[in-house]
Amino acid sequence: MSEFKNISVNKKSEKLVESLVLKQKEFGIKVFHHASGVQIIDAGINSKGSIIAGLKISEICMGGLGTIKLIVDHSKPWPTWLSVSSSIPVISCLGSQYAGWDLSATKEETGNDSFFCLGSGPARSLACKEKLFTDINYGDMNSKGVLIMEVDKLPPRCIIEKILKDCKLVAQDLTIILTPTQSLSGTTQVVSRVLEVALHKTHTLGFDLNDVVEGVASAPLPSPGKDFTEAMGRTNDAILYGGTVHLWVKGKDTNSKKLAEELSSKNSGDYGESFSKIFKNVNYDFYKIDPHLFAPANVWISNLNSGNSWNSGSLNLDLLIRQWKL
Amino acid sequence: MSEFKNISVNKKSEKLVESLVLKQKEFGIKVFHHASGVQIIDAGINSKGSIIAGLKISEICMGGLGTIKLIVDHSKPWPTWLSVSSSIPVISCLGSQYAGWDLSATKEETGNDSFFCLGSGPARSLACKEKLFTDINYGDMNSKGVLIMEVDKLPPRCIIEKILKDCKLVAQDLTIILTPTQSLSGTTQVVSRVLEVALHKTHTLGFDLNDVVEGVASAPLPSPGKDFTEAMGRTNDAILYGGTVHLWVKGKDTNSKKLAEELSSKNSGDYGESFSKIFKNVNYDFYKIDPHLFAPANVWISNLNSGNSWNSGSLNLDLLIRQWKL
Amino acid sequence: MSEFKNISVNKKSEKLVESLVLKQKEFGIKVFHHASGVQIIDAGINSKGSIIAGLKISEICMGGLGTIKLIVDHSKPWPTWLSVSSSIPVISCLGSQYAGWDLSATKEETGNDSFFCLGSGPARSLACKEKLFTDINYGDMNSKGVLIMEVDKLPPRCIIEKILKDCKLVAQDLTIILTPTQSLSGTTQVVSRVLEVALHKTHTLGFDLNDVVEGVASAPLPSPGKDFTEAMGRTNDAILYGGTVHLWVKGKDTNSKKLAEELSSKNSGDYGESFSKIFKNVNYDFYKIDPHLFAPANVWISNLNSGNSWNSGSLNLDLLIRQWKL
Repeated sequence: MSEFKNISVNKKSEKLVESLVLKQKEFGIKVFHHASGVQIIDAGINSKGSIIAGLKISEICMGGLGTIKLIVDHSKPWPTWLSVSSSIPVISCLGSQYAGWDLSATKEETGNDSFFCLGSGPARSLACKEKLFTDINYGDMNSKGVLIMEVDKLPPRCIIEKILKDCKLVAQDLTIILTPTQSLSGTTQVVSRVLEVALHKTHTLGFDLNDVVEGVASAPLPSPGKDFTEAMGRTNDAILYGGTVHLWVKGKDTNSKKLAEELSSKNSGDYGESFSKIFKNVNYDFYKIDPHLFAPANVWISNLNSGNSWNSGSLNLDLLIRQWKL
Repeated sequence: MSEFKNISVNKKSEKLVESLVLKQKEFGIKVFHHASGVQIIDAGINSKGSIIAGLKISEICMGGLGTIKLIVDHSKPWPTWLSVSSSIPVISCLGSQYAGWDLSATKEETGNDSFFCLGSGPARSLACKEKLFTDINYGDMNSKGVLIMEVDKLPPRCIIEKILKDCKLVAQDLTIILTPTQSLSGTTQVVSRVLEVALHKTHTLGFDLNDVVEGVASAPLPSPGKDFTEAMGRTNDAILYGGTVHLWVKGKDTNSKKLAEELSSKNSGDYGESFSKIFKNVNYDFYKIDPHLFAPANVWISNLNSGNSWNSGSLNLDLLIRQWKL
Repeated sequence: MSEFKNISVNKKSEKLVESLVLKQKEFGIKVFHHASGVQIIDAGINSKGSIIAGLKISEICMGGLGTIKLIVDHSKPWPTWLSVSSSIPVISCLGSQYAGWDLSATKEETGNDSFFCLGSGPARSLACKEKLFTDINYGDMNSKGVLIMEVDKLPPRCIIEKILKDCKLVAQDLTIILTPTQSLSGTTQVVSRVLEVALHKTHTLGFDLNDVVEGVASAPLPSPGKDFTEAMGRTNDAILYGGTVHLWVKGKDTNSKKLAEELSSKNSGDYGESFSKIFKNVNYDFYKIDPHLFAPANVWISNLNSGNSWNSGSLNLDLLIRQWKL
């Protein structure tokens, strides 16, 4: 990924963050400054949030290197869909969008309730606390940063301080966007991860990320679930059973074909049940779920060297409609 | 709607109007100043107009709080479709886009031909002459305004003066956009009302507009009919038989379910005939048509409080194709 | 077309070119200055190129008078599609986008290898070397120009000098964009010609271009073929077997109906084989191919004067999938 080393996902996101702040009223979000001086964008806790805010937050999450569009299509069993694309999917999805930065804190650390969060978005690449950054050989040194936290309350002081320290930022140069899963913004920004989920599994399968050139994807946008567990279930189901990805890669056909065969969520033994049921079956222990489940259902791989394309998997929209519609 | 009180649909539209003026040649429209000093944009009378002008005028009509996209899809019986969305649908559609301001004048008033027009767009909310503004608790006080008139001739002097007086604007601060129904711009901006039509019937059905959070919609874009009656018939048919809406609401499931059941045009006894035939059957007396007919055909309601969604109605594309295609 | 005489496709493209230069890293393209002083944008020779670069280059190719969008749709046999529209299709497609300017040079002229290229994009209208410009009565006199060349090497000095001389430009005011067919940018910008191909055949069929008002189109975006011949075959197949066009015209119904009947590629005796096979069958002599083959498969014509619409032809996606997918 060395050719992308001097692209800054935080720099690319600055104008998108400014636009979010300027349009806060029409986007149904609230912007304020934390006691620490950090700018907080509440996109669904004490604000209604909105799909449009979710789309813009998703573009920030992708480090300004992706686009997300909403499409209404009466001919599908569910009418509202998202379409995602990125010309630098590895940096955009794994270097920025992936929710991989552990920002949890114990009761002792917070002096109050414990806090759980996996931070996502551009600021991850300022801190580079995950092995993933070594794998993709990317890091950012921008003087401003923006982090997305999929939470329903303000992060505790100790976590905000940790972020500032690890990102080497002063408080006034950091923006934190809060998006509860069960808000419109939150559900939208999670389903917008359909391309990222494909990229992450591609990495897990051992496919060389230097050979991933370009990617587009789509998924249905569910209405948010009424509580966290149901909302999380729906956003996962949208990708696992309604997600399509098309990746352009380089390299040998044997590797491309293998990726095409292995990438779809259909390869997981857990495929076939709603995520909320699967989650319940493992007693809500996320790490007991087969990691190969986390992928789009329908996979297209095109190899630029050979000109060949493969398709595997398929959607299960019936499962979604049974969950989402009365 | 008090949370949106300080959003100005006229302010939000200023840049869109400027862009329309700048691109007048490529959009096929004509911009000039009326003797009164008011800026007139002719989008299809002595100009060809265009679909792109229609799309931009629709965004102005929605007070800069909505987006309209054109999609070409070979797999549908008609190839060209519009997709509409708004994160503040009540203000955007009812506070701005709805054609509800009676701007008609008698022969005596004009000193010439009588004039009939229902004004739409942002400037309505400067005048607030309709009960609807009390219902939605919204009004605008911007120093500039823009009004859309679906007419095929310049409004008479007395109407222009009435608009200026009611909007409390000086002439140079008002822009009037003229879009005959039978022009490409006109047909496009009327079909773009598919979300607004759903919002208006939602209000008519007594559903609390404070509980409407977000909306998206789609409809096929017909080729303009050859005269006013046919053009009006087609734009109505596009929504009544080809329109889909997805609304996110709050509140009790009983109310959401009731809205889902009642909103579709299919609930009207008049459903099933082309609008031009229905119009003829009532001797061209618009007010004799069942008001419940005016709605999209296919309705999706999602309740954010319960996470439940309902779907009712369905499209009748065969009816459209029989009308639109030889 | 006299009403569009003072629209400059080169002026309209200046900002698009600037944006391409600014985003070169994220678009995977390379920008440098040729010894002559001309700015060269390499979008796939010694650069990876990208779909997004291809989309932006296509908008430049259309002289800033068209839009191209990428859509992902799981319900189609191929997932990735382009949607093209223009409100001034004749100027945008024939005055700018059409690859009609012969910029070839013999070994003697280059002092090296011979060079073959049909230049496309805005700068064609500065040179006006083709009869087509008389037919459409259009020419541009902007002080800057941009030309697209579908080649896999830098044009020879003599060709660059010819372009400057014919366009009456000094070197620093010309940008040349190079897009090999087998690159992502190249394949994308060729398939984006689906509307232009329809316009060109419309002209060939003798339909009066003054009667063409507006156009939209769509086509699937293939993965680039592994070499020039296969890449060219696929981009042609995408249009000939996967392309849909919707044109709005004026004039008599007899002419519109005739256009609708004759425009589709299905009218050609060559229809039914992949382009690469057809090309091979004529011993790679392009001019032996039936020119009526070059058209979208699926044609919609709407006459604004009568309000009538016709549809003819149909897609052959099976043929595409057999070629494109293992």
